[in-house]
Amino acid sequence: MGFEEMWAALLPVGRDPGAGGYHRFAWTPPELECRDWFLDEARARGLRVERDRNGNLFAWWDTGGTDEPGVLTGSHLDSVPGGGAYDGPLGVVSAFAAIDLLRERGARPRRPIGIAAFAEEEGARFGVACLGSRLLSGAITPERARGLRDRDGRTFAEVLAAHGTDPEGIGRDDDLLGRIGCLVELHIEQGRALDVPVGVAGAIVPHGRWRFDFTGEGNHAGTTRLEDRRDPMQPFAHMILEARRAAARNGTLTTVGKVQVTPNGVNAIPSAVTAWLDGRGPADDAVRRTVAEVHAAARAAAREHGVSVELAEESYSEVVGFDTALRDRLAATLGGVPVLPTGAGHDAGILASRLPTAMLFVRNPTGVSHAPAESATTDDCLAGVEALTAVLADLAC
Amino acid sequence: MGFEEMWAALLPVGRDPGAGGYHRFAWTPPELECRDWFLDEARARGLRVERDRNGNLFAWWDTGGTDEPGVLTGSHLDSVPGGGAYDGPLGVVSAFAAIDLLRERGARPRRPIGIAAFAEEEGARFGVACLGSRLLSGAITPERARGLRDRDGRTFAEVLAAHGTDPEGIGRDDDLLGRIGCLVELHIEQGRALDVPVGVAGAIVPHGRWRFDFTGEGNHAGTTRLEDRRDPMQPFAHMILEARRAAARNGTLTTVGKVQVTPNGVNAIPSAVTAWLDGRGPADDAVRRTVAEVHAAARAAAREHGVSVELAEESYSEVVGFDTALRDRLAATLGGVPVLPTGAGHDAGILASRLPTAMLFVRNPTGVSHAPAESATTDDCLAGVEALTAVLADLAC
Repeated sequence: MGFEEMWAALLPVGRDPGAGGYHRFAWTPPELECRDWFLDEARARGLRVERDRNGNLFAWWDTGGTDEPGVLTGSHLDSVPGGGAYDGPLGVVSAFAAIDLLRERGARPRRPIGIAAFAEEEGARFGVACLGSRLLSGAITPERARGLRDRDGRTFAEVLAAHGTDPEGIGRDDDLLGRIGCLVELHIEQGRALDVPVGVAGAIVPHGRWRFDFTGEGNHAGTTRLEDRRDPMQPFAHMILEARRAAARNGTLTTVGKVQVTPNGVNAIPSAVTAWLDGRGPADDAVRRTVAEVHAAARAAAREHGVSVELAEESYSEVVGFDTALRDRLAATLGGVPVLPTGAGHDAGILASRLPTAMLFVRNPTGVSHAPAESATTDDCLAGVEALTAVLADLAC
Repeated sequence: MGFEEMWAALLPVGRDPGAGGYHRFAWTPPELECRDWFLDEARARGLRVERDRNGNLFAWWDTGGTDEPGVLTGSHLDSVPGGGAYDGPLGVVSAFAAIDLLRERGARPRRPIGIAAFAEEEGARFGVACLGSRLLSGAITPERARGLRDRDGRTFAEVLAAHGTDPEGIGRDDDLLGRIGCLVELHIEQGRALDVPVGVAGAIVPHGRWRFDFTGEGNHAGTTRLEDRRDPMQPFAHMILEARRAAARNGTLTTVGKVQVTPNGVNAIPSAVTAWLDGRGPADDAVRRTVAEVHAAARAAAREHGVSVELAEESYSEVVGFDTALRDRLAATLGGVPVLPTGAGHDAGILASRLPTAMLFVRNPTGVSHAPAESATTDDCLAGVEALTAVLADLAC
């Protein structure tokens, strides 16, 4: 099966028939169907399947040559709520297609080539992005990961166990890391920064997630005087507006995309509002300053309304520079394609702390990501497959 | 069973063991358990149970005397999400206790005395408050009511049918209305307006619910430039703040208590935010002006952010004056208790368009309502039962 057939086979899985977005959350039925698809594609090519200790999947083209560690590619199969088709799957499908091209062209790899499908990259189910690669690389403790809960209250440990992975065995995996010489992840570009089909990643900018818990006093909407209210919705609104203003001042990006209101009744003043702030920027200090300014504004507004606010940092990644030598080698192989930074986190960014990693980006004409309008043309996807094939040939053959 | 035993029996039903609030939504298991309790109490007293065509329950103490229409009391058994114990059930339990007192004291009613448990008073399941009394009185069309959906997408018609009421039979019930001479509803006071145990309602101030649908464009939180965003969260924040300011300017009350964010992911700019505005005030024009000002501010902010906003009025009740003669008779019977307005809607307010209605309020020391801290002392509850007993004796005996 070529790229286009594989792509078409995966396309309906987990798609919302109305809005068209994808709901492929880790270990839910649509994502399990994607995992089955991965295993089928691996077996159809005679690739060796490896299920690691952390819920990640690998398909290895073992070669009998040197004992040099392998070249890993791939990406992830899970999505954000209502996400696009390309974020994650494009890298996995392109990897299978690239192996097919290498074989068609008679390539003889001297070291193994692997395809990864990393688990819970989006953090849409358990709240921590890149959970599979974080565990593999030791960037999160097994204790913390085991206790993460989905919105139905199920822990990551319970879900792993239910799908045949021992939750007591999770954590940094030096044996597996030792068998990976480098990682090249292909991914849809997520803005409008690329005006040719393929580019190479420069760096992942600093990014994090912060939770703001506003706690007031629930009361009746029709009988509680304005001056008697302790309404958490008011300081929450100030926090939303300050998030945007602070981002503009500091040259960063902030988003308030997730909100939980308690009890969320039309005729009840809320007792609590929880809101998540996503913050990114070109430098650590700019991101830190942005969050501090949003927190200060939230605190001031909360005080004015008799509401308390607590800030918790759920995750934070400092700037990730990909391996310079690897990046330059990719750019040379591809003949001078653009090198561009990205504001999105990736498994290749997490693993950059343990091994040389690099990324290829495929042009995104809409500039939309994490939403149904995310797209790439077939020509650009095929250009991505060609680029990945060239890179794998250069690194492994 | 006296008031206190009945109260204790009902207290655990539908109570959140953590937060202590009640989740008794119409025709869900906790509310069905409350209905069973009502039927048991009626049967234990030999009262005739009537299930009307609209999902409301009645327990009648029929008397063989005149064919004068009955005196109705009672209230409702459903709650808002996380509501208090008193809003609704206090009126129903007090009604049974009052009938017990009348019988103990040898009262001989010359007209029937009925106890009502009106359905879906809070509108917490199907979104329209006082749905049972609105149907009974003809204040909502059967067509519209049948199509109302709960958050799982089930229609009111489906739920009624599943519980033995024919959805084709709902609507204004002149036979039943003709058998009710007047309604006196006892209710917990919902602010801190009462400094003696019992008061009489003056009027229900105008109140309504409006839905604001903000539609923008979903996108990636980390890769979409601020100037490329069409983020509905930003105009939503302006709407929250203007709701408070417009209320202060116009001497009204506004609350933003319910919010739905799509897709509600941490790292996704929302594609849509839906927010509900609860608005109330002493006069129609002040409430209308408040809502218009909030809408204007939401529109201006939405335009600035490339977002659309649509406003829908989900319900609106103009000022409801209770029956003056009935109110004065209650006040005289009770010996000069205070007469106070209320900002909350009630079934007695809906039915005021069809028959003489009045309300008794029981003091609320915390002033909290629609939340776990809503309370009344046992002494005040018993004073409420005595007052209701005196009123029923005066009206029916």
